[in-house]
Formats: sequence, C-alpha cells, structure tokens
Amino acid sequence: MDRSGEFQKWKAQSLSKADLSRKGSVDEDVVELVRLLNGREQFFTTSSCSGRILLLDGGIDGCEIQKQNCSWLLVTHRLCAKDDVLSALKKARGDAVLKFEPFVLHVQCRQLQDAQVLHSAAVDSGFRNSGITVGKRGKTMLAVRSTHGLEVPLSSEGRLMVTEEYIDFLLKVANQKMEENKKRVDRFYSCLQLALEREEASGLRPETNKMARPVYTRRRKRKTEKTRGRRNSAEKQKDLGSDEDNAEISLSFFPENY
Amino acid sequence: MDRSGEFQKWKAQSLSKADLSRKGSVDEDVVELVRLLNGREQFFTTSSCSGRILLLDGGIDGCEIQKQNCSWLLVTHRLCAKDDVLSALKKARGDAVLKFEPFVLHVQCRQLQDAQVLHSAAVDSGFRNSGITVGKRGKTMLAVRSTHGLEVPLSSEGRLMVTEEYIDFLLKVANQKMEENKKRVDRFYSCLQLALEREEASGLRPETNKMARPVYTRRRKRKTEKTRGRRNSAEKQKDLGSDEDNAEISLSFFPENY
Repeated sequence: MDRSGEFQKWKAQSLSKADLSRKGSVDEDVVELVRLLNGREQFFTTSSCSGRILLLDGGIDGCEIQKQNCSWLLVTHRLCAKDDVLSALKKARGDAVLKFEPFVLHVQCRQLQDAQVLHSAAVDSGFRNSGITVGKRGKTMLAVRSTHGLEVPLSSEGRLMVTEEYIDFLLKVANQKMEENKKRVDRFYSCLQLALEREEASGLRPETNKMARPVYTRRRKRKTEKTRGRRNSAEKQKDLGSDEDNAEISLSFFPENY
Repeated sequence: MDRSGEFQKWKAQSLSKADLSRKGSVDEDVVELVRLLNGREQFFTTSSCSGRILLLDGGIDGCEIQKQNCSWLLVTHRLCAKDDVLSALKKARGDAVLKFEPFVLHVQCRQLQDAQVLHSAAVDSGFRNSGITVGKRGKTMLAVRSTHGLEVPLSSEGRLMVTEEYIDFLLKVANQKMEENKKRVDRFYSCLQLALEREEASGLRPETNKMARPVYTRRRKRKTEKTRGRRNSAEKQKDLGSDEDNAEISLSFFPENY
C-alpha cells in the first residue's frame, strides 16, 4: 500500500476508535477545529485538550513523573470558581497541586508539507513549542504546544497551606491564562483556515472535503487577527536563558533502541 | 565552503563570542558537560542553564509573554533558602512569581546524526521534551528540555499573598525539583559519554578532540545509571490528555515567511 493509502487506512482506523481520554469526548471549544482538520483528507486528530484547570492529589514528584497515578480532584475546561476548588481540596489526602494546562492538539499528517502548514499556523498563533514528530513507520504528527502554564502546590499531606484569599487570587491568574489560551485557540483556527485556503488557491491541494466546507466558509467571515509570534519566535531563538517560545517545526527520528 | 567547513566556521565564531547571558558564564553544574560537547568537533553549545529557582516581579501575563521585561528579584542555581526569598520579596512592586526552571541546553550539531546521538541520550536521561531544530541555512540544533517545572504567583501588586510557612513548604518542593534535575543532568552526562564512546568504537566517528579526552576518560569511571525514560516515553506517546513526556528527536523546517 502506498503512503497515501496507508495514511487513509490509519485515519479510518483512528476516527472509528472509541475516545480513550478520561473525558471520553472532544472539548467543546475545539470541536470546530477538530472537525476542520478531520474534514481534510491530509489530516486527522489523535488527541486534543482545549485547555484546563486541574487539581491533582499526590506526591509532587510522583505527579511530575507519573501523572496518571495521581488522583484528580477537579478538572474544568471553563473558568474556575473558588468554591469548586475549596470543596475539591477537602478530598485531598496527599500533596494537592493546582495546574493550568493550556491547549494541546496532536494531529497526524499525510506528509511533512501538510504538517508544516499546520505548524506555521500554530507558531503564528502563539503556540511556539509546537513540533512535528515522525515515527519509525513514517507517521508524521504535529503536536501543538504552548508554554502558558501554571503549577502551584496547595496542600501538604492533606493539609491546606494557603488561605482562601490566595486561592481566589490564584484562580484569577489561572482564569486569565484560560482566557488568553482561548484567544490563541481562536487565532489558531483563523490562521489555519487562511493557510489552508492559500494552499488550495495555489492549486497544491485542490481537493477539499465537503465535511469541512460549511465550517470553513462560515468561519472565513471572522476577522482574522494579525498573526503574532513570528517576530517573537525569531527573537527567542537568541534567548540564552530559556527554551520557552522556541518556534520550531520538528521531525522525529526515534533512536534504534526505541 | 562545504557543510563541515561551514560548521567549523560557525563553531569558531560562536565560541569566540562573549557570553551574552545575564549571568555571563556557564553554570558550574554543566561546565563539564559543555566542555565535553565543545571538545567534540561535531558539536558546540550555544546556551545552557543548569536549572534555577527564579523570583520574577511583573504582570503575570507580561511575564508569560515577555519574560525579559520582568524584574528579576532573585535567581539561584543552587538550593534556595526561605530568607533569601523573603528578603527578595520585599522588593516586589508588581505580581511576584516563583519559578523553578529545569536544565536547558542548546547544542549546534554538524549533522542530523550527531544531533540524534545527543537526543537519544537526552531522552534516556529523562529530558523528554528535547528536540532538534534545523534552520533555513541548515543549522542543526538540539534543544534539551524537561517538563519538570514550577510556577507559583506569590504577590499581587506588591502585596504578599502567602505565609512564610507556605514559602518554606514551596521551597522544599522547588529544592526537591532542583535535586531531581541535578540527577538528570548527571545521568545525561553519563548517557552521552557512553553514546559517544559507542559511536567511536563503531568507527563511525574515529576522530576525537583531545580537549575532551581528559574529561571523557575520567568520567568514564563513574557508575553510569541504568537509562530511564525509554519505556515511559514510549508509553506517553499514547497519552491522549497531555503532551508531556513526548520523546522526540525533532527537525525544524521554518516556514518560508520566517
């Protein structure tokens, strides 16, 4: 089977599978984005999270190394209220940590050029840690990643170490990040639509899947924000102190011993 | 000039330049690692940080987006004491944030295979967000990255929002992360030495630079830890909820409009 045929087989298999995430469904804020991508023959999404505020219970290092072993006290993909966190904290037995995790998306791409289009849109939208991974069997995956996080230890062995006032303050910060994250996701949607339209106009990829067309046409009317991040990412290449905001499209080569 | 000649020119230029980092010198804990790499003709380091605890003063979002505009109240590459943070916090006028930033290293590599050797060692040592970037002019760069961070807002418009007891607790967590980070850096050094030795033994790269030899020979006597992260990183490829711990060697292709 040729690469394209193999890709279509992978896509069919992936989209027919049950959603294995804890939530079991695509987050509301990225449904249209996921539809847009899955409606194009050159893409399919394998995982996504629109961005979430998360309260984990566990040993801090345990959480760091094996997040899946932590107990999840609270998770929301919307703005978070103090009372929800306070009541969830009552269930904490270990070291509770509040995290804001920004939008993340994994998209399998038919070929590198497809991934490059996606990556360029991601970087221009502020997701500057995005990168392409290519596995042993030639699977080309784009991971859209941000550096816009938060990680705050709140309790020690079940004992709350901060005041209610602090939690209120912290949630203002976390909710600000959630709102900024939402703007970036919308910007990504707009950048991606423009990029795909340009590609089609250039005749490189004349075929479009009808599934995506209505979304695509409607959303084209939206004001598209001036792309950002290009200059930043170029500047940040020179940042000697931090690896934040490194704009890259990356291609993975797994070591032989993988 | 051929690629190898061009690389040697870049290396000579880079190593002759002044260190433009705030600190102005290589962190003590990574001096040997940097020497080992710069002593090999196929590598040179362009930036490094052994890992640091950082107290920033500024608007949270401002810090996120333009870290360089924040005022740095405190930075240490060692374990951090409560009193140092408390006295530094007295200078806070805006929203002070305590961060733990893990080891980061940028290494320019002569060719992709060289970067792959480095990346494999990085992933096996627990730096699972490492990736290669290749720029327009063919510059091949490995960024060694960890996900082992911490970001905690402490004050709002100059007003401290947490207790001394919390800062004490927080620094225990930050210092634990610093110690775990140090272990990973040592593991990376050992993994890298073994990988380079294997490569030389295989005859692929017989030439070694004498500069590196003394470090190399002495450090070879150290017990090398069992490589870790390989299984984790493979498992994490399946993690649908998070992009943490994605093991990849990544190759950058900058969009034309860069």
